Amino acid sequence: MKLKTLTIVGVGLIGGSIGLAAKSRGSAQRIIGVGRKRETLETARDLGAIDEFSLDLTGSVVEADLTVFCTPVDRISEQVLAVAPHCPPGSLLTDAGSTKEKLVHEIEDRLPGEVTFVGSHPLAGSEKRGPEHASGDLFNGRVTIVTQTPRTSTEAVRRTQSFWEGIGSIVRVMTPEEHDRALALTSHLPHLAASALAGMLPDDLRDLAATGFRDTTRVASGDPELWTAIFSHNAPALLNELTAFIEFLKAFERALKKGNTQEVDQLLAKGKQNRDALEF
Amino acid sequence: MKLKTLTIVGVGLIGGSIGLAAKSRGSAQRIIGVGRKRETLETARDLGAIDEFSLDLTGSVVEADLTVFCTPVDRISEQVLAVAPHCPPGSLLTDAGSTKEKLVHEIEDRLPGEVTFVGSHPLAGSEKRGPEHASGDLFNGRVTIVTQTPRTSTEAVRRTQSFWEGIGSIVRVMTPEEHDRALALTSHLPHLAASALAGMLPDDLRDLAATGFRDTTRVASGDPELWTAIFSHNAPALLNELTAFIEFLKAFERALKKGNTQEVDQLLAKGKQNRDALEF
Repeated sequence: MKLKTLTIVGVGLIGGSIGLAAKSRGSAQRIIGVGRKRETLETARDLGAIDEFSLDLTGSVVEADLTVFCTPVDRISEQVLAVAPHCPPGSLLTDAGSTKEKLVHEIEDRLPGEVTFVGSHPLAGSEKRGPEHASGDLFNGRVTIVTQTPRTSTEAVRRTQSFWEGIGSIVRVMTPEEHDRALALTSHLPHLAASALAGMLPDDLRDLAATGFRDTTRVASGDPELWTAIFSHNAPALLNELTAFIEFLKAFERALKKGNTQEVDQLLAKGKQNRDALEF
Repeated sequence: MKLKTLTIVGVGLIGGSIGLAAKSRGSAQRIIGVGRKRETLETARDLGAIDEFSLDLTGSVVEADLTVFCTPVDRISEQVLAVAPHCPPGSLLTDAGSTKEKLVHEIEDRLPGEVTFVGSHPLAGSEKRGPEHASGDLFNGRVTIVTQTPRTSTEAVRRTQSFWEGIGSIVRVMTPEEHDRALALTSHLPHLAASALAGMLPDDLRDLAATGFRDTTRVASGDPELWTAIFSHNAPALLNELTAFIEFLKAFERALKKGNTQEVDQLLAKGKQNRDALEF
């Protein structure tokens, strides 16, 4: 499907990359960027990620076939509900937020009937921010999760899937709860662990932190405010994984205290086996 | 100083890289590689990392001005003590092991007086193994720690330092205990955490593990046997850091349970501040 008008709310790394990808693959005739900072919007336009921009959220959706919200997870539901009454009938709304359950339910509970919201989460990104780091290839071959609830129509899921596939993604459909449980382990817990490791490093050991430390803690450079919102939205699932992680660390602790090298080796072998299975 | 004969025991990633770097920078006239597998030694020779090779450990040091042991940490002290009586007077022995206290003391307690051992640890490497992954640039601009004890002569430290600087490293001198405490935090704990995270990933979530998970767990692909030896050598310091890490995770846990977003934000901000300070 070719969209007549695509509106992107928030043209940072993700929003900008959606614009560039949609442009280069001809997904939309016209792309409108919306945001709060004129400078960011101008950068996105100059980079070719959007055709025009607006500082007026509700005004920018009046002709949108599809609007995608690339704003922090704690703002998405409020913004979706604010624009919904201004969208043309049949308009589809989706997002790129890192958590799904809380915001999908907040939205579904209050959305007017003429517009549809389907939650999405492209598993692509970086600790960098801003449209200057955007790339039209960001979603190429990467999974985007599209969520379905008992209230989501199959047609709306199909349209959302088609949009993400159109910009290069591989789509997996699951419930918001399944999404949040999975991401608690594959994204939110690693972020928390990386942040804790980085947080422990005293200044005088900085030059002894080699590539291993740097890779392990890379994501800790992510924006604290964004990640506080993600952690808060997904606190129950994240707390479950955190408890399991501490248990796993304690298994290492017990084995090391006992000097049980066979057990240490088995724990490390399990990690290696799982990690090696991830290689492209 | 230009060495007449440099012997490298163990010509994998590290040993092979030492050979390539020493060759390209003219650190040694002749480089002998020693190992247990003819095939690995042949690969190292074909890649130009060594001039000749031997399967005979003690025979290969009889003309060595300097011998560097790039074998697993649980074999170094035994190998050093085995070759020491066969080294020419004034011969210098060093290593590239990831732990220092245990092996340096085991060696110093029993080393004959005509040869000298100085512990070293180049903070460079990768989860890859074998001379085929070696690089003559591996040590360029990277820190190598050289250890000094009350029994190490300043002259021996100077010669060891000069060797590592000759192949591109920046040398820092510290005690074996200082080394092990620092590396427990900057290397061994991140490895343990990465391994635990990877170990928790069930097969059916593998395709939801994006770049964040992959970076955070990259080091978990390291050889379990090598890392079991490292963890065992440095168990006391590693256990201290592991306890501190679990405490840090529990601070996150408490903040999340209370829904204290300000505290979560502060913890994440600390991690970001420390991580950002590491960027090259």
